[in-house]
Amino acid sequence: MTADTRPAEEFDRARCSVGGTLAVVGEKWSLLVLREAFLGVRRFADLQRALGAPRAVLTDRLASLVASGLLVRVPYRPEGERQRHEYRLTDKGRDLYPALVALMQWGDRWLTDDGAAPLELAHRDCGEPVSLALRCAAGHDVAGPREVRATPAGRAAGTGATPPG
Amino acid sequence: MTADTRPAEEFDRARCSVGGTLAVVGEKWSLLVLREAFLGVRRFADLQRALGAPRAVLTDRLASLVASGLLVRVPYRPEGERQRHEYRLTDKGRDLYPALVALMQWGDRWLTDDGAAPLELAHRDCGEPVSLALRCAAGHDVAGPREVRATPAGRAAGTGATPPG
Repeated sequence: MTADTRPAEEFDRARCSVGGTLAVVGEKWSLLVLREAFLGVRRFADLQRALGAPRAVLTDRLASLVASGLLVRVPYRPEGERQRHEYRLTDKGRDLYPALVALMQWGDRWLTDDGAAPLELAHRDCGEPVSLALRCAAGHDVAGPREVRATPAGRAAGTGATPPG
Repeated sequence: MTADTRPAEEFDRARCSVGGTLAVVGEKWSLLVLREAFLGVRRFADLQRALGAPRAVLTDRLASLVASGLLVRVPYRPEGERQRHEYRLTDKGRDLYPALVALMQWGDRWLTDDGAAPLELAHRDCGEPVSLALRCAAGHDVAGPREVRATPAGRAAGTGATPPG
């Protein structure tokens, strides 16, 4: 270890992006609402039916996801009915897709009796299964946390800086 | 769309791996405890200091993570002190690493003022930055959910089966 590398344990938790993200979506119903959005479910009544969430809880979580800029509330008017609203993912919300896929892959592996994924993801272009992989910028596959060094920002190793002395 | 493909909206939510995973770790403190485990923090007092979690909450979440098989409680005895315990990731717990990295990447992108990652991940072998990417089995990069077709299990498209008629 070089002198410009602090261990990750000393990382400033107040700036943590995992903690920050959980402050936005770190709650079961919020992530399940996002799951529904990715599945194409956009309307309150449909969300309620799919999730079985209490009406007040769903109302609260949708308002919170809109306030955080992950969903946007868009009016629409079914023919012959009064105006309603649907909830659509923003770019910010859509960018949580890898996190949902990661949670799904873990559940597929560890929570299913038969190891069979309840929901299969396929690349639209070629039909092949889609999965999430850790890679480094040099193109190497990274098997897991033991192959990763975490360093608080601004103190990255490998910058070529030689400590004095 | 072929006749053997149901829309993902009809997916059986009771079997969902996102929902199942959130039932295990779908709570802010549990995921933050796992973050600490990945950072190498293993002891109760150290976890409490790092997280600032109320003692009772931390005790409860650790017990739950051990009961779910994500952490294992291992005795150790510092020289001249009484026996203590530390919490180590199991394979099942370690396999949540991509989910934590996905949450971190999202936060790095959307929650930091300057876009600078507070914690940098580097491949131990080569020092290059590590990130998470969606790919298909044919090796194509998958940009996001719009390039993915989700299908309830057993009804995958692209199996070559031609619907009758």
